[in-house]
Amino acid sequence: MTKPRNAFYAQSGGVTAVINATAAGVIETARKHKRHIGKLYAGRDGIVGALTEDLIDTSAESPATIRALRHTPAGAFGSARFKLKGLEQNRAEYERLIEVFKAHDIGYFFYNGGNDSMDTALKVSQIGTALGYPITCVGVPKTVDNDLPLTDCCPGFGSVAKYIAVSTREAAMDVASMARTSTKVFVLEVMGRHAGWIAAAGGLAGTRAGEAPHIILFPEIAFDEAAFLARVKQSVDTQGYCVIVVSEGVKYPDGRFLAEAGSRDAFGHAQLGGVGPVIAALVKDKLGYKYHWAVADYLQRAARHIASKTDVNQAYAVGKAAVEYAVKGMNAVMPAIIRKSSQPYRWVIEPVRLADVANVEKKVPRNFITAEGFGITPACRRYLSPLIAGEDYPPYVDGLPDYVRIKGKSVKRKLKTPFRI
Amino acid sequence: MTKPRNAFYAQSGGVTAVINATAAGVIETARKHKRHIGKLYAGRDGIVGALTEDLIDTSAESPATIRALRHTPAGAFGSARFKLKGLEQNRAEYERLIEVFKAHDIGYFFYNGGNDSMDTALKVSQIGTALGYPITCVGVPKTVDNDLPLTDCCPGFGSVAKYIAVSTREAAMDVASMARTSTKVFVLEVMGRHAGWIAAAGGLAGTRAGEAPHIILFPEIAFDEAAFLARVKQSVDTQGYCVIVVSEGVKYPDGRFLAEAGSRDAFGHAQLGGVGPVIAALVKDKLGYKYHWAVADYLQRAARHIASKTDVNQAYAVGKAAVEYAVKGMNAVMPAIIRKSSQPYRWVIEPVRLADVANVEKKVPRNFITAEGFGITPACRRYLSPLIAGEDYPPYVDGLPDYVRIKGKSVKRKLKTPFRI
Repeated sequence: MTKPRNAFYAQSGGVTAVINATAAGVIETARKHKRHIGKLYAGRDGIVGALTEDLIDTSAESPATIRALRHTPAGAFGSARFKLKGLEQNRAEYERLIEVFKAHDIGYFFYNGGNDSMDTALKVSQIGTALGYPITCVGVPKTVDNDLPLTDCCPGFGSVAKYIAVSTREAAMDVASMARTSTKVFVLEVMGRHAGWIAAAGGLAGTRAGEAPHIILFPEIAFDEAAFLARVKQSVDTQGYCVIVVSEGVKYPDGRFLAEAGSRDAFGHAQLGGVGPVIAALVKDKLGYKYHWAVADYLQRAARHIASKTDVNQAYAVGKAAVEYAVKGMNAVMPAIIRKSSQPYRWVIEPVRLADVANVEKKVPRNFITAEGFGITPACRRYLSPLIAGEDYPPYVDGLPDYVRIKGKSVKRKLKTPFRI
Repeated sequence: MTKPRNAFYAQSGGVTAVINATAAGVIETARKHKRHIGKLYAGRDGIVGALTEDLIDTSAESPATIRALRHTPAGAFGSARFKLKGLEQNRAEYERLIEVFKAHDIGYFFYNGGNDSMDTALKVSQIGTALGYPITCVGVPKTVDNDLPLTDCCPGFGSVAKYIAVSTREAAMDVASMARTSTKVFVLEVMGRHAGWIAAAGGLAGTRAGEAPHIILFPEIAFDEAAFLARVKQSVDTQGYCVIVVSEGVKYPDGRFLAEAGSRDAFGHAQLGGVGPVIAALVKDKLGYKYHWAVADYLQRAARHIASKTDVNQAYAVGKAAVEYAVKGMNAVMPAIIRKSSQPYRWVIEPVRLADVANVEKKVPRNFITAEGFGITPACRRYLSPLIAGEDYPPYVDGLPDYVRIKGKSVKRKLKTPFRI
């Protein structure tokens, strides 16, 4: 029998409503595999916690706390926007990781993130081998952008999709109620800098012809101002109002982001973000309609209160599978969600190779977008609809969701060498 | 026994997540008083429907539809931003109303709105008497701004308050997770042009010292840039991040809205709305922190999916009481919510005179705002907390709330004279 080794888990990149459900899946499953896994450490603030030897001892957290992570949004252990460079550019960072892992007898590395993180997990597995410190690396998918290949969807996306679909439906009803004497055009800006999956989810809000949203602007489709304005006018003429869902990543034909071309602040500086107000101002300027705009920003990816039950279940399942793969000795893999059928939605978790996932970006395919470029097709609806199915409400106290906070007990440092990030 | 007379109900001004619950209260209660009330007509698009004789016959709607209004946001019958002018300035409008009411034997007028609407209901009652067509006018309170006097709160507010408190808590957790390497300052812009009640509700998100929101900017407190920036810096220094809830109505000491002083679009036009980005840009410019901002706009007042159960109950109760008052012959009154105790929250509905309500604006009192002007006091929390209590989830189909649409059957016109609004 092999001696159990410790494990390291880190959250990476933009957090989601369900990344902690994945953490719960990892931790609860690791606790069931004491023959293989000793302590499970988490990086405080993600990979930064590993580099700086700032580790959290998850064994200090009660079973109730870990269970509550399932309904708690954001990154309970802290996440980081910190991309390790290539092995050639910054080998020192990878060597430092291995140094910390060695000091704490870490034999398993679970990295919970998107494209960049899958690439990092792969590289750590390679450098471990090269440095004579083999480590089992499993990438655990997470990204609201839904842009990882080989998996049906990415945990985190289903809940944002549900939030945007619900919010679009609700706001559209508001606008429709008052369009005769008030706002005629409503613009909702959503996340998705390169892939329009979240914008596409807005399309689920309406189910019949003429229902909102009347226009979706995808980053996959170059912005055609004339066609856009014609459609806004047509929608107002026929429906009395127009609801637009716009991805933050929409670009002009020359590749510039609309958001960049956008507004300037009182000091004349270019405002970052804000394609929503740019689109609204364009409509006002060219067509004269009264408008409103909303930018959901972090609200959309933190909205655990309206999480998709499917998404929560999948987020937990990939965490659980990651540990099961690791204790079987499967290295450089990622648990992927494989769709078996759409109606009813059936899925299983299967391993895919990190090498096949890293640095591949899955955009919204052209056949998911209507011919004129402003809506979603029935095929897209069939794909998206199961991902927002089911509600999974958190408990409430005094009218507010009762989210948990971890104790976050620090693991005693073993290295003398500091590391500056 | 008096012959039953018909009734007219109209939704007015900005719609809410629960104004249709009030409509359900009015309609279901009217159906129980057939001795007094014949048909209940609703104005299509609010008072505009009365002026243009565009009436909806609510008796054509099934009991199931009316019941479903209780969980359906926005204005099912249509609402209007249309303020009747004073009697002196535009007597013709009031005379037209009476003409339509007379044509359809309308003896009861239920006007569901905010300050302006209470004033209109009062004037209609006065002009009716003056023109020899007595009509029983009952104002029914509704406004997310929560600025009506004499009532503990205004239906519609509790649900926005819950949405903003929940969203602030969720987004703050997101920011806290990633502040070490990413966004340090998050700004959430909320509604409330004159009164800071919605901004105050953001304060419910945190319950312990140091928790978000770290700063609330109220329209009641002149913006002090130096004090604000010092507090942002202090929050980032001590907590690692800073969450700001800002009311759209925040003003400089000279009375200008910050939003007006704000950004310009690509064409150099002043952008309407958007104090959120103005505040964020200020922080970036003076302190250099990475920021994000969100503008919830209509999402906040349409968010029936996270409505306050207390608010839904109160919205229904004022609709029910309005009809009960009317059939008792009480004229020019409004059902008000009277708080009997805060813990537990107990309330009753009692009539107040429209004359005492109309054109009085209830702002956030100074003792509800902390001394330095950036937070809420325990007294404010005691006031607000019961208003967001309880969840009242709508039914879902395919992952989306199953909101109802009325048939909206038109009442046959009786007048030959058109009326242009």
